[in-house]
Amino acid sequence: MSITAAKGFRATGVKAGLKASGNPDLALVVNDGPLAVAAGVFTTNRVVAAPVSWSRQALAAGPAARAVILNSGSANACTGERGTADAAATAAHVAGLLGCDPTDVLVCSTGVIGEPIDMGSLLPGADTALAALAATPEAGHEAAVAIMTTDTVPKEAAVARDGWTIGGMIKGVGMLAPGLATMLCVLTTDAVVEPGTAQATLASAAARTVNRINSDGCMSTNDTVLLLASGASGITPTDAELADAVHEVLGALGRRLVADAEGATHDIAITVLGAASEEAAEAAARTVSASNLLKCAVAGEDPNWGRVLSQLGTVPEQVCPFNPDEVDVTINGVTVFRHGGPGESRDCVDMRPRETRIDIDLGAGSARATVWTNDLTHGYVTINADYTT
Amino acid sequence: MSITAAKGFRATGVKAGLKASGNPDLALVVNDGPLAVAAGVFTTNRVVAAPVSWSRQALAAGPAARAVILNSGSANACTGERGTADAAATAAHVAGLLGCDPTDVLVCSTGVIGEPIDMGSLLPGADTALAALAATPEAGHEAAVAIMTTDTVPKEAAVARDGWTIGGMIKGVGMLAPGLATMLCVLTTDAVVEPGTAQATLASAAARTVNRINSDGCMSTNDTVLLLASGASGITPTDAELADAVHEVLGALGRRLVADAEGATHDIAITVLGAASEEAAEAAARTVSASNLLKCAVAGEDPNWGRVLSQLGTVPEQVCPFNPDEVDVTINGVTVFRHGGPGESRDCVDMRPRETRIDIDLGAGSARATVWTNDLTHGYVTINADYTT
Repeated sequence: MSITAAKGFRATGVKAGLKASGNPDLALVVNDGPLAVAAGVFTTNRVVAAPVSWSRQALAAGPAARAVILNSGSANACTGERGTADAAATAAHVAGLLGCDPTDVLVCSTGVIGEPIDMGSLLPGADTALAALAATPEAGHEAAVAIMTTDTVPKEAAVARDGWTIGGMIKGVGMLAPGLATMLCVLTTDAVVEPGTAQATLASAAARTVNRINSDGCMSTNDTVLLLASGASGITPTDAELADAVHEVLGALGRRLVADAEGATHDIAITVLGAASEEAAEAAARTVSASNLLKCAVAGEDPNWGRVLSQLGTVPEQVCPFNPDEVDVTINGVTVFRHGGPGESRDCVDMRPRETRIDIDLGAGSARATVWTNDLTHGYVTINADYTT
Repeated sequence: MSITAAKGFRATGVKAGLKASGNPDLALVVNDGPLAVAAGVFTTNRVVAAPVSWSRQALAAGPAARAVILNSGSANACTGERGTADAAATAAHVAGLLGCDPTDVLVCSTGVIGEPIDMGSLLPGADTALAALAATPEAGHEAAVAIMTTDTVPKEAAVARDGWTIGGMIKGVGMLAPGLATMLCVLTTDAVVEPGTAQATLASAAARTVNRINSDGCMSTNDTVLLLASGASGITPTDAELADAVHEVLGALGRRLVADAEGATHDIAITVLGAASEEAAEAAARTVSASNLLKCAVAGEDPNWGRVLSQLGTVPEQVCPFNPDEVDVTINGVTVFRHGGPGESRDCVDMRPRETRIDIDLGAGSARATVWTNDLTHGYVTINADYTT
């Protein structure tokens, strides 16, 4: 049920010694072909980690990749020229092991920002990983484990279609915000896919799934979502079939990301409907998802709908037109605010379920969008007050 | 040292019974003239509380006010037509007591959103307040106490100039964000001021003081900052003198707001300098101030400068041009990031002082701006998980 579910891929996760904990911290994914198609979506942060710059350039040079090497323990971000050189050296080392061009090796890093990566541990770790590569479910699972940072569980998914498969792994628990998340995600498929189709499909699916998660409003320097296609099934799905499957697996992985958000005790789906356009609905849902006050209220199992309204009112009218007097807010099925005034009693709302559904009907059209977030808890504060020290 | 410091003003704070705690919850400020000049700055939230709509309309009808009535315990927001009628009835009741026009009475409310205000307590409370009005410092202090919600201390300030004075009170501890804060603020002066000057001066000072506080990213439905001028000193300051004094008193009140932010253990001044324009500097500082991850790091006394950089990188280039390789970041005097790479050791940074200074030099110009925020603590989560329940 992971990146080795699709034919043509081997993977592994090993302990390279990058994490002080001694936990697995280096993953390698190799595409054995026959195709070596690759597509990527990256952070839009202007402060970009060296591995993101490397991988973006490598894909720009040619939409192909033989391997992806991913490390946890260090983000290799804000590390200056040394960081740039280290990312390039990592790719060159793996390329040497596989006998391919360095630009056919993509690099992903996650962990603390601003500390140089320990190349003396990383490169021998890559050698170990090469020897451990396997096409088994266990090997895929080990890769998903090795990319974890404060994740509490590895996150994998796969969807099987008629003779072809997409598998994937993802990591990320904080810094989840517009423009992806502190997220590393690798999808693999044995379908026969054109490079242009792969890129367009990945970008579209990411925009509607992982890019609609806003855990804590903080955008990472390292976000990377990759799709590798081996073509090993020999089957060429239609564009629609491929899009549907990529959307399904990325949606499932994104949902797991939300469920493992740092300190979260509730997953919150904020759906804006009755909007003038999907863009307007997304903007409004994203704005509401950023309210610390609302997120604290949900942590306290308090259906404090006033915090939905007060946050909704900060969306500029030109971005999302609506009349506040036409708005309905429904929390877990109870319409607590109707047409500009109080609706059903808040006492009717059961806030105990882990999944909290907040539906905001703007009464201004027929478009809709859902953004996922999570509650803001003592656990989040504890985790993030002490992450580097 | 409060709203009664300026000649021509009486005030009080009483217990009307709006708060379940039984604490003071109703304040009245009366301008005895000879002038009745008034100016106001209000929330830009599209979801606007009834008292804000009332006061905005009252000032639009004429830049004058005889009195301001302020209650805590209920925000009278999202309360539909009933809320609108209640705000108007409150003004009419006070106007009847004072023998003035209802539009010469401004109304401010703060508290829980979405519950109708208890007029059966409010109106008798106004009668009690009228009888208790006094020009003493104690009376001004009582007014500052009566507008508190989760504030832990009343907040007052005054500045004396050559023969004239500005006094003020403010409340607000959460929902402090761009476009003011959950803030009620009343300034009083005995200077002789033209209405147009009063409005322009207040708007300019608010934009550079209380509007540069971003406690938790949540904009309120009820924000109101008022300036009342009695002219009782007989002195007409120059526009520059007035602007300087208003800026000083609003700055002092804003600083107290930050210091009392919900659960905060550190006040954080984020200064962006070397910017292409003041607007660019403010936008960048505001963006960094919104990082929950950074705010948690400061709570943990962790000089995690990577979280400054990763958040800075989310400012759009057209809003604030800079080259990440030219940026310096200095935390409490230690330049931990210099020209795109690590600088002095993070171990040199003393994070223990309550006041934390983060200076970001963009190297892109000579403009600067400071936005204040505070750390994100367990206390914030506790307060906001349980506010209405």
